[in-house]
Amino acid sequence: MLSNDEGKMRTALCGELRAEDEGKEVALVGWTANKRNLGGLLFIDLRDRSGLCQVRVDDAAHCPDIRNEYLLQVRGKVVRKPVANKKLASGEIEVAASSIEVVSKSEQPPFIVADETDALEDTRMKYRYLDLRRPIMHGRLLKRAAIMKAARSYLDGHHFLEVETPCLNLATPEGARDYLVPSRTKQGKFYALPQSPQLFKQLLMVGGIERYYQIARCFRDEDLRADRQPEFTQIDVECSFLSQDEILELGEGLAKTIFKEAEGIDLPAFPRMAYWDAVDHYGSDKPDLRYDLRMEVLDGLSKLSSFPGYQEGTAIRALKVEGYAAKASRKKVDELAAEAKKNGLEGPLFAFKVEGGKLTGSALKFLSEDGASYILKETEAKDGDAIFLLGSSSRRKAGFALGSVRILLAKELGLTLNKPHYPLWVIDFPMFTYDESEGRYVAEHHPFTRPRDEDLPYLDTDPSKVLAYAYDVVIDGYEAGGGTLRIYDPVLQDKIFRLLGLSESEVRDRFGWFVDAFKYAAPPHGGFALGLDRLAMLVTHTDNIRDIIAFPKNLQAVDPMSGAPGEASEKALADLSIAVVKK
Amino acid sequence: MLSNDEGKMRTALCGELRAEDEGKEVALVGWTANKRNLGGLLFIDLRDRSGLCQVRVDDAAHCPDIRNEYLLQVRGKVVRKPVANKKLASGEIEVAASSIEVVSKSEQPPFIVADETDALEDTRMKYRYLDLRRPIMHGRLLKRAAIMKAARSYLDGHHFLEVETPCLNLATPEGARDYLVPSRTKQGKFYALPQSPQLFKQLLMVGGIERYYQIARCFRDEDLRADRQPEFTQIDVECSFLSQDEILELGEGLAKTIFKEAEGIDLPAFPRMAYWDAVDHYGSDKPDLRYDLRMEVLDGLSKLSSFPGYQEGTAIRALKVEGYAAKASRKKVDELAAEAKKNGLEGPLFAFKVEGGKLTGSALKFLSEDGASYILKETEAKDGDAIFLLGSSSRRKAGFALGSVRILLAKELGLTLNKPHYPLWVIDFPMFTYDESEGRYVAEHHPFTRPRDEDLPYLDTDPSKVLAYAYDVVIDGYEAGGGTLRIYDPVLQDKIFRLLGLSESEVRDRFGWFVDAFKYAAPPHGGFALGLDRLAMLVTHTDNIRDIIAFPKNLQAVDPMSGAPGEASEKALADLSIAVVKK
Repeated sequence: MLSNDEGKMRTALCGELRAEDEGKEVALVGWTANKRNLGGLLFIDLRDRSGLCQVRVDDAAHCPDIRNEYLLQVRGKVVRKPVANKKLASGEIEVAASSIEVVSKSEQPPFIVADETDALEDTRMKYRYLDLRRPIMHGRLLKRAAIMKAARSYLDGHHFLEVETPCLNLATPEGARDYLVPSRTKQGKFYALPQSPQLFKQLLMVGGIERYYQIARCFRDEDLRADRQPEFTQIDVECSFLSQDEILELGEGLAKTIFKEAEGIDLPAFPRMAYWDAVDHYGSDKPDLRYDLRMEVLDGLSKLSSFPGYQEGTAIRALKVEGYAAKASRKKVDELAAEAKKNGLEGPLFAFKVEGGKLTGSALKFLSEDGASYILKETEAKDGDAIFLLGSSSRRKAGFALGSVRILLAKELGLTLNKPHYPLWVIDFPMFTYDESEGRYVAEHHPFTRPRDEDLPYLDTDPSKVLAYAYDVVIDGYEAGGGTLRIYDPVLQDKIFRLLGLSESEVRDRFGWFVDAFKYAAPPHGGFALGLDRLAMLVTHTDNIRDIIAFPKNLQAVDPMSGAPGEASEKALADLSIAVVKK
Repeated sequence: MLSNDEGKMRTALCGELRAEDEGKEVALVGWTANKRNLGGLLFIDLRDRSGLCQVRVDDAAHCPDIRNEYLLQVRGKVVRKPVANKKLASGEIEVAASSIEVVSKSEQPPFIVADETDALEDTRMKYRYLDLRRPIMHGRLLKRAAIMKAARSYLDGHHFLEVETPCLNLATPEGARDYLVPSRTKQGKFYALPQSPQLFKQLLMVGGIERYYQIARCFRDEDLRADRQPEFTQIDVECSFLSQDEILELGEGLAKTIFKEAEGIDLPAFPRMAYWDAVDHYGSDKPDLRYDLRMEVLDGLSKLSSFPGYQEGTAIRALKVEGYAAKASRKKVDELAAEAKKNGLEGPLFAFKVEGGKLTGSALKFLSEDGASYILKETEAKDGDAIFLLGSSSRRKAGFALGSVRILLAKELGLTLNKPHYPLWVIDFPMFTYDESEGRYVAEHHPFTRPRDEDLPYLDTDPSKVLAYAYDVVIDGYEAGGGTLRIYDPVLQDKIFRLLGLSESEVRDRFGWFVDAFKYAAPPHGGFALGLDRLAMLVTHTDNIRDIIAFPKNLQAVDPMSGAPGEASEKALADLSIAVVKK
């Protein structure tokens, strides 16, 4: 990794020295990660971007004053260590110093600059420049860069053209909250930072670019949580003339290349699961398939039971957990029921155990004998298993509620530990959902998503049945990305707008400039985006998005290092024709 | 260029068909660039991302209605044309269509979608998706992407790490006007979009990253002109432990790689010119050396002449233009003098001609005989040459004023036409300039720029003499990039702040969070940025920055396509605690 233009200050990198370098005279530059003075003999762990190596100073008395994090230039000879340090890649050798020069001094750092640190996250973020010296953080940035490089290499290789789209845009009327940027030249008007390059990438397709990509910064002014940041990056792709299958192949190839290059892992083939199968059987539109815990559809039970509230059409779901009977205490079941309620369950969560080939449990009273056998048969439950069962008038709610129980159990049982990544495509998303409060259909993805050809007749009869050319790539239970085919026929687009309750003039107001483009022979096209931050989290096995961003914001959208956001001067605000309104 | 995942809609790209494809059955998809109906025989120029090819329809009567910009799928056989069309790469063949299907229809486009178009630029920008179909525009985007790819490949190869820095930052207290972004979570506070990643890249060096790059979006809310946009992109580089020479080598290697990959051109070695030499002899800190027109320093003339206002210390400059005597009419000289005045000249511009080995001209009256010989000797002027001469109390003004004359003459004489690129480094910029109006020194680059070691003593005696480790890469008279070494010693940094008239508490208020980092053993470091937009303009030989940006803004910072910036809703403004103040 030592470059041929590394300059004259050094001749080797600390972390790359090996036994075969024994005898070489080297010059190193690095920070003092640690030092130990053993009676006149000084040992320094010297750290540069490649890692650590040990420096031995035989005559500590004549050595300059050295403290932790001092930047040193060390000259000396590579010698073999009597006993290798197996924890260091360079652990077979050390450098016997002939000269040490302090290049730059450091105050006492506010926390231990090492992988195992004592710092709270807010302190780490305040002194991010010290946090980044920790090899584990440096390693995460390396992997993030490796992902970008792999993505570009794959997309360049498939003749995609990298195009930059603007950041100062017109606000989008739907979706998440935009970050706004006041215009100075147009008084009272605002740009919006992009939530994604969606409209521009579609216009590039109308513009005949055919194959576009961009590693694009995106912005959403939403309340933050552990896996969200105000700005994030997506690997954004769009192409013309491809079918959904062909696009899924491309996306899968891209994801495989990324994991191969950045993590050294060969992902398996991505199975494809229909949205409703994912909801019915895994209780999620981003199922974690690293473990099985498959849910069963027991809708037939409504006729074979007297569960309160269940009737013809109730969506009934059961989750069998092998060998869990002994653990399914009243307290545990209450806990699981609470989780299900948090995730939309309105009725109770029933729990059964299997003993002597029969169901047991207080809810047995609602079951006919046929009902009990039906459950046993459909779940293939055995002695010692537990079965959780719930019902809802909404197919989606039934699935998601029991799915939340499934996730909690998997966590409790450690089913995700040390499991290889499990990627899949979830496809066939519904085109619309009916919004009860608004009394109208709303687009599940966005109004430019293309309905499946075979479902077009349902547009006139039952829009809820229309599925879309929409697909998500799911890895380990996280949505790593997704996309859709887009509508390119203005007549179909108008029909969809009408179905969504948008009049012609509303469409003109909101999207006029965009839909105008489709009058000029738009090509069939579609695309997807992969979340770079999410991929980096998967590749580096962290649940904290801030760990894979060099300079992140905290949950208050503040940068603890600079203190941003900050005050603006009166003059700056006057230039922009805006004023702050105190609440 | 046809990818192995191009899908089932086509088997070939229009622009790639060649004589050796004769006899092949192909499927093409493309837009109708042009059509000619020759009595039952229809010729269509079909355009896809690769270029054009001609389609022949023998039975036009049974062909669907086809108009310009219709998107077609064509199946047919590749046949040799009786007479090749030399203007097309595919001009030796045509495709004899067996079937034509209209994939997507187009309204009449508002302008001719071809390299030679009749559209005004504002119309092209309003319908950018049609403008981008013009092969010349597509070609420019290809070259822009090629520049990015070449830059990444070079920097990856030299072990630079790509790191993304944030866009939502603290406002910078100096420099150009920031774009501000109101914060929703911190009432009355604002983020600023980055003018460059300057501070973050330096903090990455403090963080031990050692070698950083990013192709970074930057933002400046300045009044626009032909070569400026509100957002622009720079290839941003920073590294530790390198000398200025070593960094210049790197930057030169990067620029050469870019021109080689994107334009197929081997740039010559970059000469290095000191700032004051550039100003004295080429009248610019970004001299265009594609032509010579070297200016001479004739300061000695103050003693040999009685030019009004000239005295000991007056900076006197002369520009000889060979064979120009006949063209140097009174009117022409007035024109040149006006340009010089626009560029800072306070006194007159004098013009001489050389006839019979002697100077002529009305200004001769101010010259002693020795003065006239001195001019002839120093400029080595011959019969028929013209000499322009001016003086100023400011060395810089004298240079820049005559430099503007030099540029105008070069334009008039066509000296830049069809000349190869001429790159150079301008180095040794002054560290400070004395701001007369503020009565203090201001930083020529930024206050973190490092003074040259040999000039450190002047900090205490004459700061105007201090030169900096600061360098610009200049190509064809444009600043294509630049950078500096940075101060890494907090004591020196404090000294510079004091020299700039910044008190300790002012420094704390403005840069406290940044300078704090330098307490923890910052490494020696420096870097540079190359302007991607400028490089793309040079590589594609355009003077219009909007030509090399997919979706640019006009000079009012408006996107004529979307109309951005636009209105913000009352609710959005209330969420942000701001209000528009009508002026």
